[in-house]
Amino acid sequence: MDTLDVDLGQRSYPIHIGTGLLSRPELLTSIGRRPMRLVTDAHVAEHYLTPVRELLSLDDEQILVLPAGETTKSMATVDQVMDWLLASRLPRDGMLVALGGGVIGDLVGFCAAIYQRGVDFVQIPTTLLAQVDSSVGGKTGVNHARGKNMIGAFHQPRLVLADTGTLATLPQREKLAGIAEVIKYGMLGDAAFFAWLERNMSALLALDDEAVRYAVYRSCEMKAEIVALDERESVDGGAGPRALLNLGHTFAHAVETYTHYTEWLHGEAVAVGLCMAADLSARLGWLAGRDADRCIALVASTGLPTRPPQGMRVDDFRTLMSLDKKVASGKLRLILLRSLGDAVVSADFDSQALDATLRHFGA
Amino acid sequence: MDTLDVDLGQRSYPIHIGTGLLSRPELLTSIGRRPMRLVTDAHVAEHYLTPVRELLSLDDEQILVLPAGETTKSMATVDQVMDWLLASRLPRDGMLVALGGGVIGDLVGFCAAIYQRGVDFVQIPTTLLAQVDSSVGGKTGVNHARGKNMIGAFHQPRLVLADTGTLATLPQREKLAGIAEVIKYGMLGDAAFFAWLERNMSALLALDDEAVRYAVYRSCEMKAEIVALDERESVDGGAGPRALLNLGHTFAHAVETYTHYTEWLHGEAVAVGLCMAADLSARLGWLAGRDADRCIALVASTGLPTRPPQGMRVDDFRTLMSLDKKVASGKLRLILLRSLGDAVVSADFDSQALDATLRHFGA
Repeated sequence: MDTLDVDLGQRSYPIHIGTGLLSRPELLTSIGRRPMRLVTDAHVAEHYLTPVRELLSLDDEQILVLPAGETTKSMATVDQVMDWLLASRLPRDGMLVALGGGVIGDLVGFCAAIYQRGVDFVQIPTTLLAQVDSSVGGKTGVNHARGKNMIGAFHQPRLVLADTGTLATLPQREKLAGIAEVIKYGMLGDAAFFAWLERNMSALLALDDEAVRYAVYRSCEMKAEIVALDERESVDGGAGPRALLNLGHTFAHAVETYTHYTEWLHGEAVAVGLCMAADLSARLGWLAGRDADRCIALVASTGLPTRPPQGMRVDDFRTLMSLDKKVASGKLRLILLRSLGDAVVSADFDSQALDATLRHFGA
Repeated sequence: MDTLDVDLGQRSYPIHIGTGLLSRPELLTSIGRRPMRLVTDAHVAEHYLTPVRELLSLDDEQILVLPAGETTKSMATVDQVMDWLLASRLPRDGMLVALGGGVIGDLVGFCAAIYQRGVDFVQIPTTLLAQVDSSVGGKTGVNHARGKNMIGAFHQPRLVLADTGTLATLPQREKLAGIAEVIKYGMLGDAAFFAWLERNMSALLALDDEAVRYAVYRSCEMKAEIVALDERESVDGGAGPRALLNLGHTFAHAVETYTHYTEWLHGEAVAVGLCMAADLSARLGWLAGRDADRCIALVASTGLPTRPPQGMRVDDFRTLMSLDKKVASGKLRLILLRSLGDAVVSADFDSQALDATLRHFGA
């Protein structure tokens, strides 16, 4: 097992990464004994509710099982969780536990942020995407018909328990969705890790224990460093270090909104976004053309999509990207690559190059 | 005009207090020029929307007018505000403005806390209660059928503009509701201010400019000091300085929940809660009996209620108080007086004394 610390002063917390963690109650001693409620979804409950119920000594009435899927990540579900927490009288010094993927983690983290003005919570991520990305860093929230993650809060967990053994039951599409975020870390901050991914992608796809452990560890390590520098994405008015984690995400959110969050997984949209960001960075003359090709080739080698959904037009991108949270004072900011492993936030790019990228990828 | 600073490091902000502030745009220069949206209620709009629209140079589509009253402080209204903000595309570096009393301030502050994971907001409180209490300190939130303020967040405003001239149009009941919170400050932290209130209550009730200015200033000053010590009510596990601001509030929340937030104003319920807290403190032998009598007499002298609603029974109090946010690990904590001007948080009081107080005040 590896343990990483997210260094945020009083809000610091450990991330434990390894196999078999769900049967190690000693990892939970740091949070103390207190009233708990666990929220999960039906798919995850089928596989992991039994061990986690035992790990945390929970009764049935302390567990809420929600429908699986992105549509659960809504204000309607927040209302449902609030009703349940209040009916079951979780006190303010109680603890919420999120057992599941990114949808459950984001939703439950947001509920923890606003229940009685904030209670503590623990993340037990069971998907690769959640383990390498969404369970770490305190971004929580739900979707709105007008945009993804439009309602939310920054609220750090007290502990992240990433049992990589849970990835064995992950459907292929969800595994790939997580790999998209892993590729993102290589592209945005570590060319050597990118090269490691090129060499080890088949081991990673086969869920080789050591390859998975290293990929999760290195991704979390990079995210923890960035979050420690810029917890609330507020440095430089949102153009600071944390914004770099959004590489490919402005394109990805447009794809997800276009498909109403139902057809594409977040990571699949991110895969396309990474290809588009690499393409644009090369058109601007910032990223070497061969390195942009390597990015697109690595995405393609996994089986992830490298193009937006059929029928999505240039104008669809333009409209949906203008609603992005990274639009500041009317100007679109994108995360772009100066070279492989070196991302920057920029609103100062040639809009004709963006048009060319949109035409290249759009219908 | 007086200006106070709430000292919270990067989240520090000024409170301007005085008459005629709504026609002084220079007070807003510190927040810069940026996209704004204003939310108010129908009663306040009638009196103050015209000057504030001019002060902030707002168009009609940048203004949302909600129904007046406590029922507006709900998750349903939060959904409505989110829809409106997203439809009107307020960017993340935009600013929300709350123009109104405690309901509008708490609601809009909460919307600012969760819109795109948090945007800045300005408080323009137009009731005495909001000027002396709810607009300062960053507590935001909405009610739930199972309890008051059960859903919310800590989110500090960037500026508070308390134009005491707006109190002239305040209905008598709302004015008294604010005076209850002013009395609270004297009781919890400043015996000299309490004595000043005894001497100057008729001037305050007559809205004498100088009396109002001093009462608002001294109340905000005390609140700012306490909030600076304990921003999130987290010191000593919620038993620290900020908890003292809840003097009388556990009883008051029970009254408000019992009357479904519709019949009693928050400040009216606080008035009763202050009397009950003084009574209990005297029964415990902590507060001198004559000082408890002074507290109840000062409340009574204003015309505020000193008894709970008819028919509210001892058991109603017991049930509703057990849901209070200040219940920690199953133990009820109350704010009590060791002497006039010296409040403490305590879970270590004789429960028979509490029973006696509940029997004395309940039906």
